[in-house]
Parts: sequence; C-alpha cells; structure tokens
Amino acid sequence: MNKAPEFRKILIYGVGLIGGSFALALKSAGAAGEIVGFGRRPASLLKALELGLIDRAGINPAHELEDTDLVLVAAPVGQMPGIFAQIAPYLGPHTVVTDGGSTKTDVVKAARAAFGGKIGQFVPAHPIAGAENSGVAASRSDLYQGRKVVVTTLPENSDERLDRVKRAWALCGAEICELTPEQHDRVFAAVSHLPHLLAFALVRDLAERPDAPLFFDFAASGFRDFTRIAASHPEMWRDICLANRAALLKEIETYQNQLREFRTALEQNDGAALEKRFAVARKARREWGEKQEFRERTGE
Amino acid sequence: MNKAPEFRKILIYGVGLIGGSFALALKSAGAAGEIVGFGRRPASLLKALELGLIDRAGINPAHELEDTDLVLVAAPVGQMPGIFAQIAPYLGPHTVVTDGGSTKTDVVKAARAAFGGKIGQFVPAHPIAGAENSGVAASRSDLYQGRKVVVTTLPENSDERLDRVKRAWALCGAEICELTPEQHDRVFAAVSHLPHLLAFALVRDLAERPDAPLFFDFAASGFRDFTRIAASHPEMWRDICLANRAALLKEIETYQNQLREFRTALEQNDGAALEKRFAVARKARREWGEKQEFRERTGE
Repeated sequence: MNKAPEFRKILIYGVGLIGGSFALALKSAGAAGEIVGFGRRPASLLKALELGLIDRAGINPAHELEDTDLVLVAAPVGQMPGIFAQIAPYLGPHTVVTDGGSTKTDVVKAARAAFGGKIGQFVPAHPIAGAENSGVAASRSDLYQGRKVVVTTLPENSDERLDRVKRAWALCGAEICELTPEQHDRVFAAVSHLPHLLAFALVRDLAERPDAPLFFDFAASGFRDFTRIAASHPEMWRDICLANRAALLKEIETYQNQLREFRTALEQNDGAALEKRFAVARKARREWGEKQEFRERTGE
Repeated sequence: MNKAPEFRKILIYGVGLIGGSFALALKSAGAAGEIVGFGRRPASLLKALELGLIDRAGINPAHELEDTDLVLVAAPVGQMPGIFAQIAPYLGPHTVVTDGGSTKTDVVKAARAAFGGKIGQFVPAHPIAGAENSGVAASRSDLYQGRKVVVTTLPENSDERLDRVKRAWALCGAEICELTPEQHDRVFAAVSHLPHLLAFALVRDLAERPDAPLFFDFAASGFRDFTRIAASHPEMWRDICLANRAALLKEIETYQNQLREFRTALEQNDGAALEKRFAVARKARREWGEKQEFRERTGE
C-alpha cells in the first residue's frame, strides 16, 4: 500500500544550502517524489546528485514544468528575475512556485513582471535559516527545524496554493509566519542586512591597514562572534543589499545617527549617558536571549 | 615534605569573573597560599567565600599588604585610581601588583600618580578573557587557559618583578604577550572596544522603537552572534570607553568613514564596489577564523 508522496515532482532552482536542505528535508519527510535540480554551476549539481539531494539535473525547463507540483527558486535574489522569466511560460496548471529569497518587495516585483496573469501561482517565502557556510555540501535535513519561514502572501494566491507552499515548509520543520513584503523588508533590513554590512565594514577596515596582523592577533571571542557574519557570501550579500536598497539605506542612516550620539557622549566625557545607553541595550539583549533559549528548549 | 606555595599570600581587589578565575586557577595550580579578597559588594565577597575562591574577606589594607606577595586589581578601570591610592602606602618590599584592566595608558597613569617612587612594583597586564556573563559566580579555573595576557612592562619594572607577574599569569594557563600601553590601547580600541560600542548601538536602536517586538521576533542567529557583546556590563564598558577615549574616538571616526563608503556604494547602486568590499572582509575573516581554529586545536 504505497501512498504517493505529497509532492510528486519538485524542481529546485539553485541547489545550494537553502535548496539542498529543502530537498533533504522533504525527502526525509517522505513528501518528495522526484526532485530535479537546475543551476548555474554543473559542479554543484553533480555534488547534489552525489549527495542524493536531487534525483536528476534538469536541462530544459520547457520539458520539466508541466507536471511539476512545486518549484523552489533558491538562487541569489539578483538571479531571480532571469529564472522567473525562464520558467513562466511553462508552468503547469497545478504548479506552485515559492522562493527562498532574503528580500521580498523586489522579488515580488520581478515575479509580477515575469508571471503576469499567473502571479497567483507564486507564493513568496523567506526561510530564516542559513549560515556563513554556504554551498550545497553544507545542506542539512534539519536546517529549517524550529526556524521561522516568513510567507508574504499575495492577494492573487488562492487558499489552496498558499496552503500547499506553507505545507511544504512545515514539512521541513519550520514555523510559518506572515508579513507583508514591505514589513518583511523593513524588519530584515534592521535585524539582518544592516548587521551584515556593519560586520563586513569592521573587518574590511582592519584588513586594509598596513599593520593588520597586529590587530587580528589580539582579536578574541567578542570579535569572533561579532564578525562571524562577515564571512558570508559576497555575491549573495551584494544582491540582498541592492534588492533591499531603500529599506537598508534608511537603516544605515538611523544607525549613523545612533552612532553619532554615542560618539558625542564620549567626546563630552558623559559617562552617565554612555552607561544608560549600554544598559538599555543590555536589558533588551538579555531579554531577547532568554526568550530565544526558552523557544529552543521548549520548541515553542 | 610540603613545599611552600609560590605565592604565599595573594590579595584580590574586585572579586568578579576576572579576579575569581585568577584565584581559582592559582589554587588549582597549587601556587596560592592564602587568598584575601577585597571588594565593594559584601554579597560578592560572601559568594566568593562560599565558592572557596578566597579564604578571607579583607577589611583594612593597612593590615594586609606588608606580607603580601601578589596583588591583582581586577575592578572596573574607573575604580582603579581609588584602589591604587588605598594600597600604595602599605606595599611591602616584596609585594608586586598587577591588574586586569582592559585599557592600559590610563591605568599606568593612575598607577604612577598613586605609587610614585614605588611604580616599579606595578606590572600592568590585560588578560584577554571574559564573557558577557560577568560576576563572581561565573568564575572558572580554566578561564585563562590558552588565552593571551598582554603585559605592558614599565621601564621601572625589575626583571624579577616582571617575571613574578608573568609567572602568575602563566600558571593560570595564559600565553604572555608584550605591547606598549599605547599599542595595546590602539589595538583593543579597534578589535574590542569599537565592536562593543557598535553592538550596543544596534540593540539600543531597535529597543527604543515603538514596534521593537516585531524586529526582535525575527532576529535570528546572525543577530544573536553579532549582538552577544551588547549584553556586556554597562558600568565596566562605560569605564573602558572613557579610559580609552582618545583611541576609541579615532576608531569611531575611521569606522564612520568606512560606513559612509558602503552607504555611498549602495546609494550609487554600485554592486561591484559592494561585492569587492564584502570579499575583502570575507577573505580576512576566513583566514583569521582558520588560524584561530588551528591555535585552539593545537594549543599553539
């Protein structure tokens, strides 16, 4: 009594950490029939085949989409418009498309341009998972376990399609949240994109000094954690910054003002102002940390 | 055949994480005779007694210093001038004093003012260890194991005194490095003090927004690591910032310029410039990380 898997055929565009882990998770859940991978780099597709993440490397989307249940577009956001344009003409009536992009307003815009009247078949999503170790070899079946996936539903999405995409992410172990694309981009500009930029800036600042080794020699655990995200993928982060440019520029400006306030307090030797600001940050950070630990412990 | 411990009597001023771990490490090494703790907070001293970190809480420095081999001043740097002034009149001829301060130029200045002609008895040091979990209860005998301790030798330090202080830190498992106080402060402004300030600024920026919970809800592992140091002790960091004000202000300015460059690249939609900068940072961060891992694995 073999039950057909929930998604009989899945296409993954961009088989890296996000796409590979999605494939693994759905296979582990017994929810995936055939998984076909598309990508720019033949070496990554070969690796994905070797690791058993995909069953086949796709060649021509024109021959693959008609009978596909689910497409995940997990390439850097800068490549998404091109991928959407490639697949749009061939979507089957039952095909639903989702993505793993870290920005949403621009992805939705590109999807509208490419899919036109079929835009209802695209359900935008952003899995809040990842690591500075990108690449297909880093894929893990539990990457999404207990992580949030933000779905930014479009008015054109039918309940049935929306449910199917949510169901796929839920099968990966993720918790589904909803935001509008604008809310999403504002929030992630602040809690993810800006910190990445700040960490990149600090490390570059040190790396380009003539006596850089002296500085790196004495950098310790605080530096290690603060700059971990500065080891992230340059192309991916270039795309994210450009894609979320407006929201990120606003965040940079706000942060520059914040930093100027700290600088002024220091210039004025105003210890009370510094301590008060540090205390506000410490309290918020501790409360956040305790909440996170509680979530991780209880799975809530 | 009981050998007398290398340090028959040790005084610790400020029994928190740094002082408590120093006490534990020297006791574990069998190098400590009696350890006497001094501090502002009776509760911390009681806790230190309970945990067996100190043998006794001291009351009057006039009665304690004459026969003391080693004093560690491990209070926030803002309190050090007062502590130096308290102990200076009573130093025994054999007493050597070291400290655990995160800044050195100002500590040396305060020590010169307090110790006067006895300045040769003070050997400044900075153990590169610590955590956002401050306080005596977080003390660990292995806190300094494999960590660097920067000694900023003074011209007045005799070889014998210098060796005794280095020996104490080496018994804690630390690797001894030498810098001038000015080098020290410049390096740590860049790799420690600035990152702390940047992390405090980011968390405060979010914490004071009316819709702060929305942002914190979606903050994930990148944010967690980047902001870990924003949970650090406000008073301690106020003191460090003020004590290392000149070097830190220079670093803030350099960083502001760096950030402005990133912002300009983003404003101009200059993806190539962004990617290039990110790549410089990633390469430097990866190389640093690999070197650290190698050090940790091999103990070199």
